[in-house]
Amino acid sequence: MKFYDCSTAPSPRRVRIFAAEKGMELDTVQVDLRSGEQFSEDFRKINPDCVVPALVLENGTCLSEVLAICSYIEDVQPEPPLFGRTPEERAEVIMWYTKTEQQGLIGVMEGFRNFSKGFKDRALSGPDNYPQIPELAERGRLRVQRFIDRLDQRLDGRAFVVGDSYSIADITALVFIDFAAAIKVSIPDEAGNLKRWHETVSARPSAKA
Amino acid sequence: MKFYDCSTAPSPRRVRIFAAEKGMELDTVQVDLRSGEQFSEDFRKINPDCVVPALVLENGTCLSEVLAICSYIEDVQPEPPLFGRTPEERAEVIMWYTKTEQQGLIGVMEGFRNFSKGFKDRALSGPDNYPQIPELAERGRLRVQRFIDRLDQRLDGRAFVVGDSYSIADITALVFIDFAAAIKVSIPDEAGNLKRWHETVSARPSAKA
Repeated sequence: MKFYDCSTAPSPRRVRIFAAEKGMELDTVQVDLRSGEQFSEDFRKINPDCVVPALVLENGTCLSEVLAICSYIEDVQPEPPLFGRTPEERAEVIMWYTKTEQQGLIGVMEGFRNFSKGFKDRALSGPDNYPQIPELAERGRLRVQRFIDRLDQRLDGRAFVVGDSYSIADITALVFIDFAAAIKVSIPDEAGNLKRWHETVSARPSAKA
Repeated sequence: MKFYDCSTAPSPRRVRIFAAEKGMELDTVQVDLRSGEQFSEDFRKINPDCVVPALVLENGTCLSEVLAICSYIEDVQPEPPLFGRTPEERAEVIMWYTKTEQQGLIGVMEGFRNFSKGFKDRALSGPDNYPQIPELAERGRLRVQRFIDRLDQRLDGRAFVVGDSYSIADITALVFIDFAAAIKVSIPDEAGNLKRWHETVSARPSAKA
């Protein structure tokens, strides 16, 4: 099993934190996104989607979406459970994972990739070029701010996003909040629940992964 | 358990097909999206995200993402398995589900909601208004065409998107292809694998759900 990573990118960080919580060491290869190594012929053979994270399994299958990779790790190493402990919790974890990815992380990505000069024609990750859309940068930013409010409300009276223990929903929210710095959005002072939660989850050793 | 549905909308259709494959009858309430019932005070109390599908569990939890709802149904009614049969298959099913949703279904939605006059200021579903972005309609359409090619390649020599049996990856791809009609995109003649697969999966009784 081989893990294709980029130590500075937010999506692979989600897998690194997940694996660290499992106490698992992944056989890791760094892919240099800055020099465009993900578009090289060699990497295209591994993952034609030209993105990291990617996990190549013993049977040769290349998994290239965070939720897919983490589902696999959860199945082969179930303890501690990071997808919830009951059918209700599992469903809620997946729901919050999805909302945080679609409304939060994608919002930051839209805000960043449609604005930054370095991403000209690279408004989306993957093998194809797409021009930047300035209105989408604006919209992404607004969605991020709204989702921060939403997370703050969710965390009212809760130690974790779902249930009584740390899960992939918290990992996704942590990486979302930290990545929002890329568009200069941080937790506002009035979002006390989110601030408290962010301090707690950032203090876990896995957060350094 | 109560299922909030809209019989003409693509996202709840994915849950309807999933439940039909399980032979499960859901206690269903129709929400009239055309008249804006999803924004009513009554529905906001059920699902503050103002979207369908939503599944309200016996414990009162409202699940409102297709993957979360289907994960719950899979857990409480495991047969026939629709998320794959091994850790590798489960991960591949989630990977193809995610790719099809993010590159395919969201592409159609972008193409449709940023173009159609009826969706003025409703470029995204959910409680907040966002103005249409015409470039995003164009981009969505292009992504849809590219993802159709991608699916056609994937289905070369395969009866199903993942493994040897029907799964939620096929359901998502089926609803994506059918929904693409909303932006007047259909399977091109040269995409023979996809055409063959689409005929087969459309013939399953669940496709009428």
